[in-house]
Amino acid sequence: MRDAYLVGAAQTDYGAFPHESYRSLFATAFEDAVASVDGEFDRAAVDEAYVGTLGVGGRQLGLSGPAVTEYVGLDGASCTRVENACAASGTALRQATLAIRAGAADVAIAGGFEVMTDMSGDQTRYWLGVSGETEWERMAGTTFAGVYAQMADAHMADHGTTREHLSRVAAKNHANGANNPHAHLGFECSLDDAMNAPSVAEPLNLYDCCPTSDGASVAILASREAAEELTDTPIRVAGAGQASSRVGLFQRPTLTGIPATTDAAEQAYDEAGIDPADVDFAEVHDCFSIAELMAYEDLGFCEKGEAGPFIESGATEPDGDIPVNLSGGLKSKGHPIGATGGGQAVEVFKQLRGEAGDRQVAGLGRGLAHNVGGSGGAVTVHVFEEGWA
Amino acid sequence: MRDAYLVGAAQTDYGAFPHESYRSLFATAFEDAVASVDGEFDRAAVDEAYVGTLGVGGRQLGLSGPAVTEYVGLDGASCTRVENACAASGTALRQATLAIRAGAADVAIAGGFEVMTDMSGDQTRYWLGVSGETEWERMAGTTFAGVYAQMADAHMADHGTTREHLSRVAAKNHANGANNPHAHLGFECSLDDAMNAPSVAEPLNLYDCCPTSDGASVAILASREAAEELTDTPIRVAGAGQASSRVGLFQRPTLTGIPATTDAAEQAYDEAGIDPADVDFAEVHDCFSIAELMAYEDLGFCEKGEAGPFIESGATEPDGDIPVNLSGGLKSKGHPIGATGGGQAVEVFKQLRGEAGDRQVAGLGRGLAHNVGGSGGAVTVHVFEEGWA
Repeated sequence: MRDAYLVGAAQTDYGAFPHESYRSLFATAFEDAVASVDGEFDRAAVDEAYVGTLGVGGRQLGLSGPAVTEYVGLDGASCTRVENACAASGTALRQATLAIRAGAADVAIAGGFEVMTDMSGDQTRYWLGVSGETEWERMAGTTFAGVYAQMADAHMADHGTTREHLSRVAAKNHANGANNPHAHLGFECSLDDAMNAPSVAEPLNLYDCCPTSDGASVAILASREAAEELTDTPIRVAGAGQASSRVGLFQRPTLTGIPATTDAAEQAYDEAGIDPADVDFAEVHDCFSIAELMAYEDLGFCEKGEAGPFIESGATEPDGDIPVNLSGGLKSKGHPIGATGGGQAVEVFKQLRGEAGDRQVAGLGRGLAHNVGGSGGAVTVHVFEEGWA
Repeated sequence: MRDAYLVGAAQTDYGAFPHESYRSLFATAFEDAVASVDGEFDRAAVDEAYVGTLGVGGRQLGLSGPAVTEYVGLDGASCTRVENACAASGTALRQATLAIRAGAADVAIAGGFEVMTDMSGDQTRYWLGVSGETEWERMAGTTFAGVYAQMADAHMADHGTTREHLSRVAAKNHANGANNPHAHLGFECSLDDAMNAPSVAEPLNLYDCCPTSDGASVAILASREAAEELTDTPIRVAGAGQASSRVGLFQRPTLTGIPATTDAAEQAYDEAGIDPADVDFAEVHDCFSIAELMAYEDLGFCEKGEAGPFIESGATEPDGDIPVNLSGGLKSKGHPIGATGGGQAVEVFKQLRGEAGDRQVAGLGRGLAHNVGGSGGAVTVHVFEEGWA
């Protein structure tokens, strides 16, 4: 099998940008990704592009993938839009990896974008508010915060997880995000403030919830042969896992975990030939604080039910055994749906290359990115390793 | 490289079905596809699924891929929704092929669906009416019929294509579709009626335009090893090409052809190691009559500018050198956007297996399927061959 390597990656600032369009955001991420490539990058060499986005509405109604790749001059690339809700660009990353492994591409783009704060021109934020499984969640009035609140409630009841455990996610990720110039909410947040914020959906409060953001991200992948021309710091996609499970939470066998995370992680670990303990750091999908705690367990970083004590131990702090969400995560960096999975890869790329500035952690050789669609209907898990295979 | 084989395929009736949902349509196509497999089919063996659809709106807003695969019990499969406008399930077919070639799947599903006639619950038909490139086509009031009318007008001016040439597409495809029990408009249409129909967008009239339909299609693909257990009549995906070009017609170098068709066909022919003359029959994307004529040229079935005389010669009739749209095509069989590309593969599957009933043509060994998104922003071309590699 041909290996895929990450040879460039970048994201825009995440935030509210009324003066930007989906195309201008994508172009910024793309040009910065090109600038991050060590070697001479020829955009005519791009064979395939995968673009993740949830949104339609006021902008391009179909073909929004080709609409952004043409805008950055990728005329020769075949472009496919992929959508798996919030896992859209994690899915794009895996499809680009498969295209290289299949021999269909030597150089491939995986990216994503979302414009969420323009309520007049786009329905994405409205949809997100009312989305989830349609018949029995959305039409019954449940929001995404409501769905994750059910998980938090069950996790607290079954495993003794506390209000403080949840808020530790917010405090840690805001502390990390304060060192990330691209963060939407790049300010620190004390544990006290996080614990005493106004309620959104019991037991989740404002600081348990990520923001909705505008933004874009782009990763550039290459086969070994192409990567040798393009990079001095090869980062291999050692494992690319993806799984689906029931779209509605009520249809799944557990309220306290996401089965598709476990399945996707198992695939990624198998491909990489590693155990969870071999992961040096991770970007996980913390759309709500409880989601990060469940990810610790589903990804095997700690035992089932032990996520609360695990975060309390400091294990996932920057100086811990396995730093999680050094970028600030969705909570602080922001969550522009279609860009999020690609943005996670950007942080892994930067940390593995030692280019993460004030939030750089030394000695990292293997990173994981975990991207969840909806409340777990689709999940991707990627393992990235520094060095040639 | 691992080869992918088509081991099962089916589509629903195409038409207006107010009593059906996107899930019930997908389930019908899926169960019929399973029934078409020669061997014992175990749905737990499905590793990957790709589902093409354009629509969102009144139904599942994100994750509509996993929402249909869970409905048919594909709990173990990783599902990805792909969208390239009307080329959505042609794209799904290629992604499933790549997943098998990459070693990520032994058995994969490629399907698609669209519910277009329920105006209350879904905006797809509205969008289609106003879609195309956003800034300079849609917002200027141009419809898809208007865009293809510009192509028809230019083709008539540059190459002497006539009103009668266009109408021959309708007459041929309706004659073919009258033998297809799944066809939406399964009635014959005389050349006279086709030539004298009311105008839609000059020079295109009602019989130059395909209908909007509800429907679904599903193809089942397998690696060689898996296919040996599943079929007695192997049909190999000999070539899988995909290309993009500018989304807006006005931004492309020609009005009289679709460059992405030429590019995707070149890839598919190269992979299959064949020339256009080696193709026995084809399903091409005749959303408008002019689209079929341009496809003859872009796919290399005749010289540039010669499509009019080519159809007049009878070459693409069922008894001609290269029968085109034996299924009735989009014109007569119907065009449920996300289902269309998969539905083309269904016809190729049936013809190559000798199971096409009243419209069976004898002695076919190699078929081509050509699926266009928008007015040419994305195109897939697949070549299928009977027999093991």
